[in-house]
Order: sequence, then C-alpha cells, then structure tokens
Amino acid sequence: MSDPRILTVRPEPGEYAWTFGGAPPVARIAPGTVLDLYTEDCFGGRVRSEKDLVSEMCEFPYLNPQTGPFHIEGAEQGDTLAVHFVSVEPARDWAASTTVPLFGALTSTHTTATLQPPLPQTVWIWQLDRTRRTALFRAHDSDIEAELPMDPMHGTVGVAPANLEVRSALVPDAHGGNMDTPEMRAGVTCYLGVNVEGALLSLGDGHARQGEGETCGVAVECAMNTVVIVELLKGVTTPWPRIESDTHIISTGSARPLEDAFRISQADLVRWLVRDYGFSELDAYQFATQAVESPLANVCDTNYTCVAKIRKEWLPARETYRAVHARLRETAATCAEDPGAAPPAPARPGSLGP
Amino acid sequence: MSDPRILTVRPEPGEYAWTFGGAPPVARIAPGTVLDLYTEDCFGGRVRSEKDLVSEMCEFPYLNPQTGPFHIEGAEQGDTLAVHFVSVEPARDWAASTTVPLFGALTSTHTTATLQPPLPQTVWIWQLDRTRRTALFRAHDSDIEAELPMDPMHGTVGVAPANLEVRSALVPDAHGGNMDTPEMRAGVTCYLGVNVEGALLSLGDGHARQGEGETCGVAVECAMNTVVIVELLKGVTTPWPRIESDTHIISTGSARPLEDAFRISQADLVRWLVRDYGFSELDAYQFATQAVESPLANVCDTNYTCVAKIRKEWLPARETYRAVHARLRETAATCAEDPGAAPPAPARPGSLGP
Amino acid sequence: MSDPRILTVRPEPGEYAWTFGGAPPVARIAPGTVLDLYTEDCFGGRVRSEKDLVSEMCEFPYLNPQTGPFHIEGAEQGDTLAVHFVSVEPARDWAASTTVPLFGALTSTHTTATLQPPLPQTVWIWQLDRTRRTALFRAHDSDIEAELPMDPMHGTVGVAPANLEVRSALVPDAHGGNMDTPEMRAGVTCYLGVNVEGALLSLGDGHARQGEGETCGVAVECAMNTVVIVELLKGVTTPWPRIESDTHIISTGSARPLEDAFRISQADLVRWLVRDYGFSELDAYQFATQAVESPLANVCDTNYTCVAKIRKEWLPARETYRAVHARLRETAATCAEDPGAAPPAPARPGSLGP
Amino acid sequence: MSDPRILTVRPEPGEYAWTFGGAPPVARIAPGTVLDLYTEDCFGGRVRSEKDLVSEMCEFPYLNPQTGPFHIEGAEQGDTLAVHFVSVEPARDWAASTTVPLFGALTSTHTTATLQPPLPQTVWIWQLDRTRRTALFRAHDSDIEAELPMDPMHGTVGVAPANLEVRSALVPDAHGGNMDTPEMRAGVTCYLGVNVEGALLSLGDGHARQGEGETCGVAVECAMNTVVIVELLKGVTTPWPRIESDTHIISTGSARPLEDAFRISQADLVRWLVRDYGFSELDAYQFATQAVESPLANVCDTNYTCVAKIRKEWLPARETYRAVHARLRETAATCAEDPGAAPPAPARPGSLGP
Repeated sequence: MSDPRILTVRPEPGEYAWTFGGAPPVARIAPGTVLDLYTEDCFGGRVRSEKDLVSEMCEFPYLNPQTGPFHIEGAEQGDTLAVHFVSVEPARDWAASTTVPLFGALTSTHTTATLQPPLPQTVWIWQLDRTRRTALFRAHDSDIEAELPMDPMHGTVGVAPANLEVRSALVPDAHGGNMDTPEMRAGVTCYLGVNVEGALLSLGDGHARQGEGETCGVAVECAMNTVVIVELLKGVTTPWPRIESDTHIISTGSARPLEDAFRISQADLVRWLVRDYGFSELDAYQFATQAVESPLANVCDTNYTCVAKIRKEWLPARETYRAVHARLRETAATCAEDPGAAPPAPARPGSLGP
Repeated sequence: MSDPRILTVRPEPGEYAWTFGGAPPVARIAPGTVLDLYTEDCFGGRVRSEKDLVSEMCEFPYLNPQTGPFHIEGAEQGDTLAVHFVSVEPARDWAASTTVPLFGALTSTHTTATLQPPLPQTVWIWQLDRTRRTALFRAHDSDIEAELPMDPMHGTVGVAPANLEVRSALVPDAHGGNMDTPEMRAGVTCYLGVNVEGALLSLGDGHARQGEGETCGVAVECAMNTVVIVELLKGVTTPWPRIESDTHIISTGSARPLEDAFRISQADLVRWLVRDYGFSELDAYQFATQAVESPLANVCDTNYTCVAKIRKEWLPARETYRAVHARLRETAATCAEDPGAAPPAPARPGSLGP
Repeated sequence: MSDPRILTVRPEPGEYAWTFGGAPPVARIAPGTVLDLYTEDCFGGRVRSEKDLVSEMCEFPYLNPQTGPFHIEGAEQGDTLAVHFVSVEPARDWAASTTVPLFGALTSTHTTATLQPPLPQTVWIWQLDRTRRTALFRAHDSDIEAELPMDPMHGTVGVAPANLEVRSALVPDAHGGNMDTPEMRAGVTCYLGVNVEGALLSLGDGHARQGEGETCGVAVECAMNTVVIVELLKGVTTPWPRIESDTHIISTGSARPLEDAFRISQADLVRWLVRDYGFSELDAYQFATQAVESPLANVCDTNYTCVAKIRKEWLPARETYRAVHARLRETAATCAEDPGAAPPAPARPGSLGP
Repeated sequence: MSDPRILTVRPEPGEYAWTFGGAPPVARIAPGTVLDLYTEDCFGGRVRSEKDLVSEMCEFPYLNPQTGPFHIEGAEQGDTLAVHFVSVEPARDWAASTTVPLFGALTSTHTTATLQPPLPQTVWIWQLDRTRRTALFRAHDSDIEAELPMDPMHGTVGVAPANLEVRSALVPDAHGGNMDTPEMRAGVTCYLGVNVEGALLSLGDGHARQGEGETCGVAVECAMNTVVIVELLKGVTTPWPRIESDTHIISTGSARPLEDAFRISQADLVRWLVRDYGFSELDAYQFATQAVESPLANVCDTNYTCVAKIRKEWLPARETYRAVHARLRETAATCAEDPGAAPPAPARPGSLGP
C-alpha cells in the first residue's frame, strides 16, 4: 500500500483477539492512521443457518472475536484515543441472531440464577439488502415479515483495561469493550481513555442493526468492513467511553445494577459539561436533567450499558476534545472522495477459531 | 355547560388528591367524556422564585397534587381505560425546577443511604415562551443561557391501585402514577388497566419539558391546562400502563432495580405483539430485540420507569385496543375545530395545601 | 376480663386485616396492655394438605391476614411503639409451605420478568412436635426426612404507613409489615415509629421456623398463639423498624435492590450508635463494620429486608429506648408466672376469607 | 526443610501478585503439600499509623498483595482444589482499618456515582492481643473503647479465572478472589473450581476480624502467618467457591446487584444438596429455604458476596467432596502436634511495592 497512513487488516482465522488486554498487538500504528478493517461477527462466522445452534457451533470463551489490538505509538495512561468511524458496512448479505441459553434480559441467567429451565435455542437469519439498506425479519411461527432499516454499528470497541486486568471481549466496562450501543455507527468519533502504553485498540461485533437494550442478548450479527481513523489526544483524560456525533455529545456508563450504569453515564455527562462547556456542576446537573436523551444500550451483558446524550446545538459554542471530531470528519470526507484510500473489502466469511 | 360530555375542572386549593386510591371521586363521568382540566405543579404552585426552597415551601406528603379522581361509569376490574391527551398546555409563562435534599439520581437518598451530606438545595426558574414554544434555562453560576423546545407532558397519570392499596402520588407502579415519561404528551392515548369499580383516574405533575431519566429528580415543573378524552374498553386487560401514539406502541414498566423496570416493559411489549399482532412469543422476542427504542423515563422516583416502544409502520397491519386511538384522534381534531368545546383556561396559580 | 390490661383477640374469619393502614381498629388499647392474640397463617388456614394449591385455595389479595389493627391511645407521629413478644407458640401441630408461581428468589417473578414458565407448584406439610420443639421435613421425591428445631417467629408486624398510604400486608417497608426476619421471636422488643394517630398495630404471618432470606418465598407457615405487651415511648423517633433482644440491638431495612436494604439497615445501626451510645458517626461506621452481624431476612417480597445486629456487651453501658426492653422482659416474666394472665389458646383453624 | 511436602513462602517486597491469572507461579507444588505462608495486609503494610492515609501511602492498583500463585501439579479445568486452612494467625500486634474515598457501602462510589464529595479519610489502628485473642477498638472522637474477639480470616483466596481473563485481586467472582467472608477461617476447607492448568492458587488480605458485609469497605487488616494444605480432587467440578467446616456446608455467590449474589449462592447450595445429598431440586429448594443461614460477606467490592450455609447435622449422612475435609482436618491435627512442620513465623512488616 502506497500511503503509509492506511493500514488494511483482514485477519486470518487464528488472528483474532478474544480479550481486551493480554493479546499481543497485530500492528503498531502512528496517530492519524486510517485502519481499513474486516471484523468477524460475534459467532466467528459459524452461525450461518437456522440449524447452526451457538451451543454446538461455538466454544466458550471463543466468542466475539476482535480485530486488533493496535498499538498506537505514543499513547500513554492519561491520554485519549479518538477513533473516528468513517464507514461501517456489512460484509455479507445476511446476518444472524439467536437466543442463547441463560443469556439475555428476559430469561434467568448464570447470575440472575433461577431453577427454571432455559428458553429454547432458536436462530433467525436476517437477509440484508445493502442497496436498499434494509434488514429483513422472517418470523418462524407465522408468515410475518418486516423490513427494518439497516443501521450498521459496532457492539465492541475498546482498549486494554487498567489495573493490570485482562477482560473478555464480552465485557463492557470503563475500557469500552462490549457496550452494544447503536450510537457506535459511521460518522461518530469514540473517545477512549488510555490505560496502558500503546492503548491496544480493538474492535468487532458488527450489528446490521440493534434495538436499544439488546433485549434477547443478540443483535443482527454481521461481519463488517469498517474504516476508522485513529487519533491520539495527549494529556486529555476520558474516564468512561464517550462518543461525539455531528449533533450530540454522548457519555456512556457500564455497570450493574442498571441504575449504576445510568448514574455513571449521567455523572460523566455532567462532568463533561463542566470541563469543556463552562457549566458549574449544579447548573450542569439541572441543565442535563431537562435536556438529556437516555437510550439504553445493553441490558444483557456482564455489565449493563447506559447512554446519556445531549444536543450540541443547545450547548455553548465551545471546543471539546480539541475539535478533533470536526477535523476527522473532514479527513473522512477526503477518504470517501478517494475510494482507493479505503476500498470496500470483499466479504471473507472463513471459519475461524481459537 | 351545553355539551354534557365536556367536564371542566379547576380545583380549589383544598380539592386536590395526594394519592391514587383512597380519595373520593370529584366527579362521575360517562365513557367518552372530554375532561378540560387544570393541574397544579408538583409543588402545589408554591415554588415561584429562586428563594422558594421546597423544604420550606412544601410539606411532605403534600407534594404532587392530582386533579381527580374521576369515577368512570361502568369501569370494572379487567377493563381498560383509554385516556387520550388532546392538549397539554402550560398554564403559566414560567416553570420551576430544583434539587431536593436526598432525592434524585446523582445523590444518595433515603434508601440508597450514605453518610454523606445532601447536595445544596437550589431552585431554577425557567421562562416559557408559549408562542415560540421554548423554555429558557439560565445558569446560576455563569452567564450560560439555553433555549430548549417546550415539550409539555404529564409526569403523573393513573388509576386506583389493586390489592386494596393506596399509593402516594409520588409513586409509579402497575396502576400508573408518577411514571415521569416524556411520552405522555398531547396526541397520545394512555391505556390503564382498571383495578377498582369506577377506575378512579387522576392526573397531574405537568412538565414543560423533561430529559429522559429525570436525572436530578425534578423536571421543568409547570401548572397545565390539559384536555383529555376518557374511553372505556370493556373486557380488555392492560397489566402495565401502555401508550399509543400515531407512530408507536409503547409499553412501560416501573420497579427497582432499573433492570426489572426494563424487563417488565420489554416483556409487556413482547406480550402486546403476541396478543394483538400475531407473533409467537419467541418471534416477538427476536423482533423487539432488533426494533425497540428504550428511552428511560425516571431513575429517581420510588420505582424507576422504563419505556419500550416500537414503530407501528414496522408491525403487521392489525387493530390494537379496538382502534380506539384513531377514533379518539379524530374526536380530538373535532374538539380543536370547535374551540368552545375545550377552551384554553386562564392560569390560576393560587396557593393550595392539605 | 378482670384485668383491663389484658386483651384477648381471636378473630372470626371475617375479622382480619389485609393491609397496613386503611383498616378500622379492632380495639383501642392503653399503653402497657398485654395482647393475647391468635394469628392465622399466611394462607388464611386454607392450605392444609399437599393437594391444597395456593393458586386454588387462596384468592389474591386475600393473603397474609393480620390480627389487628390496634389503636394505641396517645400514639402520635414522632412517637415509638415498643412491642414486646412474650410468647409465640404454634397453634397447630402442623405447618405448611409451598412454591408459588412466579414468587420467590430462585424463579423469575412478575417484576424480574422473563419469558420462562413458572416452577411447579408444590406443597410441603411439616409436622410440628411442640413438646420436643421440632419441625419435621419430609421430602417428596426421596425418603429424606430431617427434624429441624422449631424457632417460632412472626413474619409480619407493623403499623399504618406514612404519606397517606395503605399497603398490602405482603409488603415490608419503613412501617414494618412483611419483613420476614427470624429475629422477630419471643423475648424481643420491636420498635416501630408511629405515623398516624393511634399507630394502628397489626401482626400475623407466623412461621414455625424460617431460613435467612426465605429463599422460596414461603416459610414453615403456621397459625400462632402469641402474647405481646405494647408500650408507647412518647417523643422518641424510629425511622425504620428496630428490634432489641437480651443480647443484641438490631436494625432493619427494606428496599430493592438488596444493597439498598443493606444500606438502610447499616446506616440505621450507625445512627442508633450515634444517638444512644455516644459514638461519632465515623467511629460508629468503623466500629459497626467490624462488629456487625448481617443475616438476610427476606429476598423474595416486594421489598427485600436486611438485618444489622450488634452485641450489646460490646457497646458502652448506656440506656436505649428508655430501658423499656428490660422492663417489659420483667413484666413478661410476671405474665409467665401467672398463666391466667395470658393463657395458651386452643388452635382454631377455621376457614376465613374476605 | 526435611519434609518435601511442606513449603514455606515469605515473599520479598517485589514478589507479591496483584491479580488472579496473569502472574507467573512462585512455585509448583504437588497435591497434598502444606503451604506455610506469610501474607501482607491489603495496604502492603504501608498503613501503620493514623497519619498514613491510603491515598498517600498506596498506589492503585498495587493494593491487596497476594502470596502466590502456586501451580498445583495435575490440576486441570474440571477439577476442584481443596484448600484446608490449618491456621490463620496475625503476624503483628496491631492491625489497620480506614475509610477510603468513594469506596464502601455507606458512601457513593465510582459506580454508584453521585455529585457529593467523599467522606473524610480516617485511619483506625486496632491493637491485637494475641494471647487473649482480642482486638481493641479505640474511638477517635470519644473515649469509647471496645475489645472484640479476634476471629482471623482471609478476605482473598482464589485461582486464575476462566475465559482468558486476568482479574484484579480486589475482585471477587466465580474464581474466588476478594470474597471477604468471615467464614474463611482456620479449620475450614475451601473448594475452588480449576479453570487453567495448574489452577494458580493465591491468597492474602488477612483480617483480624470483620463484620458481615464489610460495611465501610475495610476490615481489621492484618499481615498473617497462615498454614494451608492443598489437595486436588480430579474430575470434581465446583462452579462457585464453596467452604466446608466441621459443622456446615457453605456456598458463595459474588455479583451485583446483591440479590444476584444471593441467588447464585442459594442456587449453588440447592445444587450441592442435589448432587451430593440425594435431594430432588424442588425438595432441596424447600429444605434450604427453611434451614439456610445467609450472612452477608461483602457489600462493598466490585462484586458483592453472599454466603449460604446449612448445618451438616441436618443433612443425610452422605459423603461430599470425597470426604477430603475430614481427612485434611486429621492431617492438620498432625501438623499441630509437630510444631516443626508448620512453625509460627516471625512478623515481617517490610515495605513492599510494585
């Protein structure tokens, strides 16, 4: 590849990471690098028909493969990584969802333990129409069909955690990880606090679309061709993952019980307003109370994730995160004009495993 | 009043209800009646300037006065009340919000008990521009001002509870009550299951606007002139309050911890899809997982409230709740054409109390 | 009855209360009165064999009948009722327990809502040997038998709630109610804050014994002959129910999630140490941390209940609650010496209902 | 050392582990080995007077040093480690406790996030009398003193976690870790499921005593001289840490919210009764409901821990865990008779660090 700032990564089956932290970097990149990535779906591409039960096709803990990690040169604890999503495009014309025994919000689980048997394990294959940008639901037990808009996103984006820990790619926490928020779509910039040298960024878990809360525990799971630009903001801290879109600033929190995820996300938004927009803490508390949108992200994972978002047009005209979102937005537009810079990649389903 | 189906109620200070259940009806009405109501704000109109601290102006439990209750003729356990909101209009050109000691999501409380002192008690008065339909925030500790769209709603709508109980108007539960969801705005129909003879409907707690989750515990609190039409659906059950708008069907759940409110609302939505739209339970679980919007309502009250909503355009073309929403929408349009039928009422602040 | 200070109450079937608050007093008593009471079991005596399923024999909300309420003369908001348990004796030689559909800790429920079917409904009849003071468990599906010590207690003791509310007898909260703690046994004094004139004390829900947490939701349920002495402490407040035994002071808290019940009970214990034993708040926090016993009471009811207890021998020698426990202990000893004062009552199962 | 089955380990400052998983083994041992260990306190021995604030003396994440890990030869996933505590003896005549900013049950925290300032940071030094086996509390703000019984225990015992994870030593979960239950005292056997080859056992976090729930987040923290015998049970699974004493079988569960920790521990106890004592699941549910003791362990750590225990005398006379507890109890008695086998070690405070 001629441009050293573009790195294309299409992992071979054995090349995925299954954790945040603990996996050796697949590449060292300079800040500003464009990553042109292939990500496998959360099943490692192994659930391909309604006969492919997760319990038979997948082997715990080899779920939710991550593309990465990438070592970002110069990143240290106390810095922030800005990950701009240029494009997130389904790599196949189908996607899979399923119930998983003792996983999901409307079933008992290994921690919300009951003596009841699990719900049946059932797979739904959704057809994606990438031209019309729709995802087609077909009911099993009736002739109901429904075409929903595609809204591609990444369920999992994160860096190596703090405290010497290594966390499964199924976990969302302060390092990011499996937050499963539909806000993580093309056009946004995700801010992640750096915990270890090089940050060690990975991402995966593409969803063709997802409802808020990911009720049954599994979205419309899909391999993705995704382009991101990675920037480094030295000396800027980010305690919990944040997202900036053209219209909103967005805080997240991941914890149990769900009210703690809410508290984290709302307190983080208040502190963002204080740090970057000139509010006192109590004024920010009052203002956010009346202005915030609070859609749920996931209520099924090992931590639950809440989102707190506020319209930028309602905020004082101040700069946040050194205006990196606007700059990356422009760079992304340039990428898009030069298709060679970040070409759409062919789908490569391939079996993969530990 | 010439039209017997229109009842105007502007309570005198001593005429409000402070509970759901346990208060004698202020009127008996036939199904189909248009109620043209004045509702006081949650402070009983006593917080009128930044010097009016709730702890000094209001006396617990005389908070959140309700207009009602109304005995609906013929309503019995097992029926559903359909309450259509024709209009919800601020009755004053200002509204009040405040922090309340040991109340709200970002403070310890009487139940999330800590040994820390409470946050300061601070009042914000919001100016409402009813022509431009905006609410003006003025910061205390800086010169920040922000004009937000008015989006008037009722925090509290409900009927007498089941199980022989009487609940404070501050409580949301299966009978409705203080759910504090911004979805309760003009144009929607709220479905409430009837628990006792006559149902005993009340409403109050107007908000000029509110963020999702009502983070500090208090919205932009405002007296309202509100017009609703009350219909009765015999033999139709509604286990938890539901709302229908022109675009969405909406389930609610109120409980602690917050994930239980989520579970209730999502399970209720699944069961609604099964009962009225022809889905099997597992198909509904899958479909809702990918299609649902899940904005928080309140994360501050004695129970927390979650909302689960789905676009009607994505659902099979079936009738729900005997198509009463569409009919009431039409009736409401008629009301609007005949301004005499439900005239805007003058604000009447008046002091009130127990 | 010759001694005006002893009142015997054996309710007729229609004479029980099903709520705290909202029921008219069955008697007005002076402070110091000895109440010699019969209490029915939580099923109203209707589950008498393994064929008697709760769902068939009992009709919601007519569960958990309470003996009372008693109006205590002179009791006002801001006072404390001291209820000393002289004796708690099973009124029959058998007791019943059962699983209840969608109720209990190891099943989904109406609020921890899942799509799984409920567990089977199964009744166990326990034989009580009142001489040897044992309760005999017989397994259904094996020949296992186990004789456990009887440890009779009342699951439900309370007064009318604050805030104009009426609560089901199935609810535990700040007014007491269905706390289901094994600490409520003969020999202890229960302190309840008075919320309304006359306090309106009721009790019921006898258990021949119960594990901590009441895991399946139902204890070894038993009608009881119970003698209590009721005293009034004017001008002494009690924010949450407390218990004093010869060896411990005991705080309770009832809330969801369970950590909030824990927080309430521990914070209450800290404040008790501060008010009556001379500790500063932080010293009390440290001391209680190392000295407290924290057995669970119930993790199945509408609120969960935690207990926080500390040995009196480890505390400074100070007086708490005007030393009423020691005085009532002496009075109780006198009662016991004069069997005529509080005679053991014959069991009267009798069917009862709304 | 003459007996190859005894291994004495007194780590140098740089030789502690700060995680479960991710640390190289300090030794490989055969099953049956007696470990004669020194463990540092959770502060690394750095809090030695009331002037030594944790925030100044300790550097996150270098809290809670663990002695180990030990690679147990032959241990594989699907096996159980039996760790018998022969003796747990304070290594100093003092111990330290403290409040920690935004940590503990009666304060907001980083996840139960509020806008309130933290409680003051205060240190208490407890004097231990190892002859009389007491721990002396001295109040800061009054002249209150109280002598409590010493009851030495380990807050932290665990193995490497499953799912490729590495967890901070501050975390309790299915691998054990920082469970903080007073049940982990001399005389008991702790059963831990093996997740990785060699199991990688570590322990630390000695407490001279602790209340149930560890309310302020910190016990009476003390370096320990501890002797354990480590056995391996091939082909026996243990999903969550269990403990056996001479009198009880004890299940644990660690999760948030606290009711999930309760559910895990109680469901685990039910399954233990089913697997080893011949109960059907529903019979076990009923029996445990009436027989269980449920003291809290911690309600302050990243996961909360509940304990569910039942008297062995009430259970059918069956063998559990191949009767290893009784055998290790005998071996331990032999150790005690031969003081050379496991000599009391001199206290070695020493500063330590990363």
